[in-house]
Amino acid sequence: MIKAWVEEVIERLGREKISDHETEKYRHSRDESYHPPVDPEIVVFPESKSDVLIVIEIAKKFGVAVTPYGVGSGLEGQAIPILGGISVNFERMNRIVEFNPEDLTVTVQPGMTRMELNKAINNHGLYFPIDPGADASIGGMVATNASGTTAVRYGSMRDQVLSLEVVLANGKVMKTGTKAKKSSSGYHLNGMFVGSEGTLGLITEVTLKLHGIPEHVVAARCTFNTPKECAEAAQIVLRSGISVMRMELVDAISIQQVNQYGGYSYPEKHSLFFEFAGTKAAVEEESGVTEELMHDLGCENWERANGSKERADLWRARHEMAYAFRHMSGMAISGGDVCVPISTLADLVVYGRELIDESGLIGGVFGHVGDGNFHTLIVFNPNEPNEVKAADYINEKLAYKAIEVGGTCTGEHGVGLGKRKFQEAEHGEALVIMKKLKEMLDPHNLLNPGKIFL
Amino acid sequence: MIKAWVEEVIERLGREKISDHETEKYRHSRDESYHPPVDPEIVVFPESKSDVLIVIEIAKKFGVAVTPYGVGSGLEGQAIPILGGISVNFERMNRIVEFNPEDLTVTVQPGMTRMELNKAINNHGLYFPIDPGADASIGGMVATNASGTTAVRYGSMRDQVLSLEVVLANGKVMKTGTKAKKSSSGYHLNGMFVGSEGTLGLITEVTLKLHGIPEHVVAARCTFNTPKECAEAAQIVLRSGISVMRMELVDAISIQQVNQYGGYSYPEKHSLFFEFAGTKAAVEEESGVTEELMHDLGCENWERANGSKERADLWRARHEMAYAFRHMSGMAISGGDVCVPISTLADLVVYGRELIDESGLIGGVFGHVGDGNFHTLIVFNPNEPNEVKAADYINEKLAYKAIEVGGTCTGEHGVGLGKRKFQEAEHGEALVIMKKLKEMLDPHNLLNPGKIFL
Repeated sequence: MIKAWVEEVIERLGREKISDHETEKYRHSRDESYHPPVDPEIVVFPESKSDVLIVIEIAKKFGVAVTPYGVGSGLEGQAIPILGGISVNFERMNRIVEFNPEDLTVTVQPGMTRMELNKAINNHGLYFPIDPGADASIGGMVATNASGTTAVRYGSMRDQVLSLEVVLANGKVMKTGTKAKKSSSGYHLNGMFVGSEGTLGLITEVTLKLHGIPEHVVAARCTFNTPKECAEAAQIVLRSGISVMRMELVDAISIQQVNQYGGYSYPEKHSLFFEFAGTKAAVEEESGVTEELMHDLGCENWERANGSKERADLWRARHEMAYAFRHMSGMAISGGDVCVPISTLADLVVYGRELIDESGLIGGVFGHVGDGNFHTLIVFNPNEPNEVKAADYINEKLAYKAIEVGGTCTGEHGVGLGKRKFQEAEHGEALVIMKKLKEMLDPHNLLNPGKIFL
Repeated sequence: MIKAWVEEVIERLGREKISDHETEKYRHSRDESYHPPVDPEIVVFPESKSDVLIVIEIAKKFGVAVTPYGVGSGLEGQAIPILGGISVNFERMNRIVEFNPEDLTVTVQPGMTRMELNKAINNHGLYFPIDPGADASIGGMVATNASGTTAVRYGSMRDQVLSLEVVLANGKVMKTGTKAKKSSSGYHLNGMFVGSEGTLGLITEVTLKLHGIPEHVVAARCTFNTPKECAEAAQIVLRSGISVMRMELVDAISIQQVNQYGGYSYPEKHSLFFEFAGTKAAVEEESGVTEELMHDLGCENWERANGSKERADLWRARHEMAYAFRHMSGMAISGGDVCVPISTLADLVVYGRELIDESGLIGGVFGHVGDGNFHTLIVFNPNEPNEVKAADYINEKLAYKAIEVGGTCTGEHGVGLGKRKFQEAEHGEALVIMKKLKEMLDPHNLLNPGKIFL
């Protein structure tokens, strides 16, 4: 028998915007994390803000949970509808609403992916630089405050969002900002909704800053004997004021995985990957100074590439790494995402490496060392309780250590399900205020319930 | 007879931390704006977080208004204690709490001024770049989300604050962030408290990002025949991706004022001021390309200066402008602070110029055109109702026009008293949420009552 609220959704939105097929429920039950899947009762594909408003109205009337879904590339279970209810898939809301190349801004619907956006605007000499790896939806990237390899230059999504249109749990529609580059007018709701993981409202439009495509790009890579030397070298680059576009650490074990997975022969040593981008003179100066610095610090295997194919070859080990680890069949992956003050980075990277080595599990350490943000990827057998326990132990120790040195348990993946247990330790009294905010904006706990807060 | 709450403040904090002298009450009754002064009943000079907690405790017990005070350089009346009560002057909380040069961060008390901070850290090769003109307190700059001439490169305070320690109206102390450069952990309270103008809590510590002092700086100036040509030239610089450190428009009437006030002989034409800063190669490239661009656009009077004295001479007309206008005795000053999408900037600047010209009042148009933020300064006789009305009319028309084109009524001065009337038009439904936030965090309306909201 069909439930009354499902009937009402079908009646109000029409059959073609709803699915309860097993394959769709399966697709919307999970993301790319190790968190256990949970099926939604139905999936809704809104095509407009009005459709989203109808979903919220019915959810409120019947007390049904609403969980937004982008492309499912999240890493902390944010899109998993843990109470069932409605999964709201934004893939049909994937258009550019307004493109203002002369303002360097664009307004898009949340279901557009970052690659779709870039494809649409690149011929104007502009691009949207935030690059979390996956071809995530813009809405999902806003919801988790995503960042990635270019954060060392462009910050995270929060730094690039000018305004959001949000449908609130009370059925009202709100704009969180303007199209001006800065404002001192009223409370900054914009920053609060970025990173709120669908728990405070559903995003229906996103206004983003855009940037000129750099005219000249150079990639480089070198290796060191220890992760500590890599991390320290990255610190020195930052402190000397060199404006890198990307700067990534990949440890030796991660390089081994990539070589095995892809049949490559990259030097299996702890590696630093660089990208420099800007005007030709600036890029030549920055890459030259960096090369000198790295050699002074005793690097090996310095390689540099100019053309786009050569750059892709050089960086392949970094790009394919996550997939290399994921390709061991039957195994699960969990990982840390800490971000720490730069001065503590080398010690934390070593600490993470040691935790993995002591556990006996296979795992890599790598990350966006320009921000103090790095990841661990730990491969474990989900059917072996000891391995599950060992992987959890590594993640917990690393997260608490990051908080202890003044950092955060999640630099870019978000809280979702996996980082809820660290919120109290990280935020203390601020967590009380965050919970009050949630209660204020979503008193019936309809919007992505069970995320962020335990 | 001394009031019971004043007695309790004296008893708990000690006589030396309190003043009710007329001179102190006068000093704390006003800021640099035209808003009418109001005396506080007493001024408190806390020396620690504990002192601030005591103030809040007593304010809550007796229902007394609490208005924070930095150095009084605000431009929208934020520091005016319009309900009397307690003015909290943070000048004794002016120390560096923790300086981490290797992390490029510093934690300071709110009463330290930006120049005091720079004096303390410049010998480490580091600086704090946000420059609103006045030597404002860091706490005040956080409270209003200040920015200024360097915002085109560094954004506003919100972009530079990593974390705040805040004493809340409920007597709890909260930290809003961490020392990591980015985070996706929980709601971004940090951005919400920056720009909240003392209405949500009292700031007792501020953790800021720092930056390397650029090794090479070049200043330049040129003139155009119309404000529109100036604004369009600024747009073209931005769109060609040149990373200016500062880019300011000063219109001809403002230059005249400076010449009269200071006895200078700057060309009395609409002027664009530039500063380029970074490595020598980058600065030479940027200033060279800009010079070519400006000449292509038909600029006149291009001048360029390298040494610090020569740069100061070149920029003096910009730096002294606000004072030049302020020096007409018996006259008051009011001004706009709109920030608009770059594509609308030239039209808005022209619109502002026309409004002033039509009014018959003396007034200048100038601003941080790299951000789309510009100001009007209108000189009027506060005892002539017609002039007051004319000045108000200009400000209102300009603010509503800015909102209409997708901008904001205040780019950097904040709402305070003067921009409250535009909040409904600018924020709509979001204003309802802002008011709820205020009620949630300050249910008895003790913290800077009467600001932001009408």
